Amino acid sequence: MTDFKEALDENARLVTSALDRLLPLEDKPESRLMEAMRYATLSEGKRVRPFLVISSARLFNVSESCALRVAAAVEMVHCYSLVHDDLPAMDDDELRRGRPTCHVEFDEATAILVGDALLTKAFRVLSELDTHPDPAVRSELVTAMARAIGEEGMVGGQMLDLKAENANLGMAEVTRLQRMKTGMLIAFACESAAILGKAPEPARHALHAFVHDLGLAFQIVDDLLDVEGDEKELGKKTGKDAAAGKATFVSLMGRDRARAQAEMLSGQATQHLEMFAEKADPLRELARFIVRRRS
Amino acid sequence: MTDFKEALDENARLVTSALDRLLPLEDKPESRLMEAMRYATLSEGKRVRPFLVISSARLFNVSESCALRVAAAVEMVHCYSLVHDDLPAMDDDELRRGRPTCHVEFDEATAILVGDALLTKAFRVLSELDTHPDPAVRSELVTAMARAIGEEGMVGGQMLDLKAENANLGMAEVTRLQRMKTGMLIAFACESAAILGKAPEPARHALHAFVHDLGLAFQIVDDLLDVEGDEKELGKKTGKDAAAGKATFVSLMGRDRARAQAEMLSGQATQHLEMFAEKADPLRELARFIVRRRS
Repeated sequence: MTDFKEALDENARLVTSALDRLLPLEDKPESRLMEAMRYATLSEGKRVRPFLVISSARLFNVSESCALRVAAAVEMVHCYSLVHDDLPAMDDDELRRGRPTCHVEFDEATAILVGDALLTKAFRVLSELDTHPDPAVRSELVTAMARAIGEEGMVGGQMLDLKAENANLGMAEVTRLQRMKTGMLIAFACESAAILGKAPEPARHALHAFVHDLGLAFQIVDDLLDVEGDEKELGKKTGKDAAAGKATFVSLMGRDRARAQAEMLSGQATQHLEMFAEKADPLRELARFIVRRRS
Repeated sequence: MTDFKEALDENARLVTSALDRLLPLEDKPESRLMEAMRYATLSEGKRVRPFLVISSARLFNVSESCALRVAAAVEMVHCYSLVHDDLPAMDDDELRRGRPTCHVEFDEATAILVGDALLTKAFRVLSELDTHPDPAVRSELVTAMARAIGEEGMVGGQMLDLKAENANLGMAEVTRLQRMKTGMLIAFACESAAILGKAPEPARHALHAFVHDLGLAFQIVDDLLDVEGDEKELGKKTGKDAAAGKATFVSLMGRDRARAQAEMLSGQATQHLEMFAEKADPLRELARFIVRRRS
């Protein structure tokens, strides 16, 4: 596991330096926007989604530099969603990854624009020649990401989440909400690698089954950490869902069953990876890490 | 001119029904998001940007259905930018096209998500097969639009605009700001048609020169209407720039010179269209319309 933590850290460093290159700070009148975009992206995240892109891309012998660009685009989308979710009109959070949120450090208007610009930049990165020589691959990446993060995916899930306060959602509804809000971008991380590698259908299917289970396990652990986690370690406020009267996997199942369910899903996820043999070891280790993480 | 108004109205109807098809309202738990996306897009706009896409596409014999999809994507981007610009943390506007702005009709959180979802949807539409059979065209559309509306374009311009209050900007700075904030999306409307039509370099260049002048004329008239226009006709509040202490073309040049400049630019714009002969008549009429419009 120590080795895996090192691999994860090394991956995070690679992703951060790719983001640093893709979001250069130039001396222009609008440079405050770039500063804020960099603030929102160049922090100490675990970079789980980029890890999924890069580790999955290795299954299909995709060039590292192509995979890294897609990984950076996925992380830009994740960061944009955090910046907008943290806004006062949304979740109203002041702390993220142990630092003031973007609208606290800058201001609300800047934070809105940072999200808009990061989202736009992510699509730009996917569509540019350096991401893949085949334009069919590039446009498939754009379509697939847009589907995962638009009104049928992440943004739709965020809309459901806003309405979830005191709404007494049941298990099926919470599962659908979380699948849209966080699961579909996580799934795109693996899907993007299959697109880059022009993977055959059975491999795509196996990877999709893996990440479907993994995404759910990830979210259950997130809910557990919101109840059990340490604010310092997490770098964000805890206990928010309960305070807001939102149903979560933990409120619906209880802690013990939730933890058992996450463990079960993590194990089930790795079973889908058999066809990739030892090439999928980093994905297997990620699945183990995800249920044991404390932040 | 009456004929032209009819052509513009007919174009607007086409675009509205394309948006209606692309943003279907389905009975889902998150349907309020779709309702708000439709509210923000299916209103009575002039649809100037879509008119530019469709009229320019005719120069290159692009299929009407392809052009209409790109026109709808450009309008989605324009509408997203209005929804976010109108937010309390930004320009704080309550009236748009004669109706309550999105965050007033719905709420702030929904308006933020509406903008995010429309932006995402616009990229999705550009990248999907129905937009053009050649994936190289589709990915070039995505790259070009992202460049026009990201931190080097529209969003960067909006950032400059936020900082423009009492900043005593000069002519060069106001021109750069407006070019980024509104000119680059207007320019993309024409550029997208050239991309769709795989237009040769001289035609691209001519069209770009046309829309460069047109965009500036359009903005100068916008500034004039903010001073001289009728709130009822415009469907939005006037006098905002002066109240905010923002330099505009009108505050820098005075009304008479501003009007003369807009007329000059509109005439100059049409001179770039010579190579297209009478096929460019709708673009010529648009250039005349733009400096005479009252809303």
